[in-house]
Amino acid sequence: MKIRTISRVIQGRNRSSSIQFYICRVSAQFHSIPKRPSFGIAFDIDGVILRGRTPIGDSPKALRRLYDDSGCLKIPYLFLTNGGGIPESRRASELSQLLGVNIDPIQVVQGHSPFKNLLKRFENELIVATGKGEPAVVMSEYGFKKAISLDEYASYFDNIDPLLPYKKWTTKQPCHEQKNSIESVPNFDVTSERVKAAFVVSDPVDWSRDIQVLCDILRSGGLPGEKSEHQPHMYFAADDLEYQAVFPCERLGMGAFRIALESIFNRIHHKPLEYTSFGKPNPFVFKNAESILNQLLNEDHKHKTSENFQTLYMIGDNPEVDIKGARQAGHPWFSILTRTGVFRGKKNHTDYPADQVVDTVEEAVEYILQREGNP
Amino acid sequence: MKIRTISRVIQGRNRSSSIQFYICRVSAQFHSIPKRPSFGIAFDIDGVILRGRTPIGDSPKALRRLYDDSGCLKIPYLFLTNGGGIPESRRASELSQLLGVNIDPIQVVQGHSPFKNLLKRFENELIVATGKGEPAVVMSEYGFKKAISLDEYASYFDNIDPLLPYKKWTTKQPCHEQKNSIESVPNFDVTSERVKAAFVVSDPVDWSRDIQVLCDILRSGGLPGEKSEHQPHMYFAADDLEYQAVFPCERLGMGAFRIALESIFNRIHHKPLEYTSFGKPNPFVFKNAESILNQLLNEDHKHKTSENFQTLYMIGDNPEVDIKGARQAGHPWFSILTRTGVFRGKKNHTDYPADQVVDTVEEAVEYILQREGNP
Repeated sequence: MKIRTISRVIQGRNRSSSIQFYICRVSAQFHSIPKRPSFGIAFDIDGVILRGRTPIGDSPKALRRLYDDSGCLKIPYLFLTNGGGIPESRRASELSQLLGVNIDPIQVVQGHSPFKNLLKRFENELIVATGKGEPAVVMSEYGFKKAISLDEYASYFDNIDPLLPYKKWTTKQPCHEQKNSIESVPNFDVTSERVKAAFVVSDPVDWSRDIQVLCDILRSGGLPGEKSEHQPHMYFAADDLEYQAVFPCERLGMGAFRIALESIFNRIHHKPLEYTSFGKPNPFVFKNAESILNQLLNEDHKHKTSENFQTLYMIGDNPEVDIKGARQAGHPWFSILTRTGVFRGKKNHTDYPADQVVDTVEEAVEYILQREGNP
Repeated sequence: MKIRTISRVIQGRNRSSSIQFYICRVSAQFHSIPKRPSFGIAFDIDGVILRGRTPIGDSPKALRRLYDDSGCLKIPYLFLTNGGGIPESRRASELSQLLGVNIDPIQVVQGHSPFKNLLKRFENELIVATGKGEPAVVMSEYGFKKAISLDEYASYFDNIDPLLPYKKWTTKQPCHEQKNSIESVPNFDVTSERVKAAFVVSDPVDWSRDIQVLCDILRSGGLPGEKSEHQPHMYFAADDLEYQAVFPCERLGMGAFRIALESIFNRIHHKPLEYTSFGKPNPFVFKNAESILNQLLNEDHKHKTSENFQTLYMIGDNPEVDIKGARQAGHPWFSILTRTGVFRGKKNHTDYPADQVVDTVEEAVEYILQREGNP
């Protein structure tokens, strides 16, 4: 079997350089292996591969083990993170630069990646998107035609945020917004057109403003100030209560924001908040990851076989998110817990015990390769 | 009886001008009235007197009715607000300028005014203060020797706020902080000295950062990163879920922030959050207001009588805060509900019906003066 050839020219953050990513046609290599790899790997990022922008746990070395000497991918793997905020293509470019290996956008599965499955439903509807990074750009690149950031939506309503005079800030990324944004000339009237759905794409930055404006949208049927029984759809890319960032102790995640919004909304509205959360540990996310790992293996429809993976390894640091998710997903998932992030225990997690516990991601890959007979 | 003479020189926000406030010795006036005024008035501010910085409901006219022709105060009154963020002296100056009447700092009772009663307990302890305006200045002026803003406290811990790179802001008021702040050279080591109490002085601005750092302080016994069973004290100046600001619909208040913090904290810590909230409708606030109105009347200890007020009028726009509070406080409180703020009903509020409902504060004062025989 051959690994599909993908050639892309990706423009990274530094627009003066272009980086070419490819997954080699390694027919010679695989002819020496009697069958296609029967396993794949999904890596969490924060607390496993990186802390902030710094590689940890010997992650570059761990990932290099998955490539052959000519830099071609041997073992199908992807990054399965609840984080996000920028398009997958840009994140792949970032990760490639930080980790020193070639990463294709298809190998980056972020919390909001499944939002593209909602395109049929909301493609031409007015939707708002919020979170760190460029949430409206993310949605626009998925194909949503009327995606507007909560930043911009709020700017059309005078005094909607009574704390604005105290904030000497903007949550926008100025240079990217100016170049990438389609928002400068909206083709809709936000004061008369109802918002049909709100998307929390990544961790919200300005919680007071976001909670206030989302409450205004959700309790009014999508038109602040109106009354309506019909709550617009509310989607969250993930539901992590806490996660491992640079600070030694875990930091509050999108799940904490959801708890805050929900507890307040349920006090000011007669009907409880209805919402959908994506991200690990949702079993759908693992099913989707398996599908993508299959895509990485299958060259095209002609050669596609019905062979499934015997084992898919989920390497994560957060028992409640990564290990719980792999356990709930069941076969063929096998969970490996690292000690470089949320979990720091000596043994295993009590509530969500992993199939294997290691110190670092490098040890995890070593364990996998040995278990799989060092392919 | 005479109304006490108070002469003060108050420096307003514009330091080049000084404004003199006084309550006149009006012996001639009161000799024509057989007895001292048997009633007093407490005014809520937001939604009754002002919306933002704009007088509403003919409030300047209403207040002028409480002064005689020479500008001396006839009827004792004060402002009883759950808002705050700046010292009472400065707020009195602001209100005087906005409303065109002389207001003494003693007539301004803000949400955080009772915090000064905690001075004995925390005078020399490290405490943090947060909220719009200048929360650490407020606490310092009450006499707390080691009050530090949450802004500054957080700045001593690298990466404590993972969202900081996305915030092109500061919540500081630069010119005031530089001139007034005692924080530039702290006389304590925040990385080794435990925070003994946290005070939410006014509406927090940066909710994500404030909730994160307060959780860090409260779960660690006052030293982020440590473990401790002893939660530092947590105080809120008020607990308003919503209030009337400039936007037509009510805005989320400090109570909403408290709900967010509490619901998150109770998910990440094994013991529920313990806290104390001040502000209306707390009966203590009404007792305190009665005491201050008595001070306004009594000239000095020699002439102090044991006469109590027959009636104290609470004029407010928020049934759950102003009317509920007056009802719970009982005699001599009489509640008047206006229609210029939170409440807009045609008749009366169902759960917390007021003794009288009027359209505006001007009508409220007219009603009071007629009821009291036009003194």
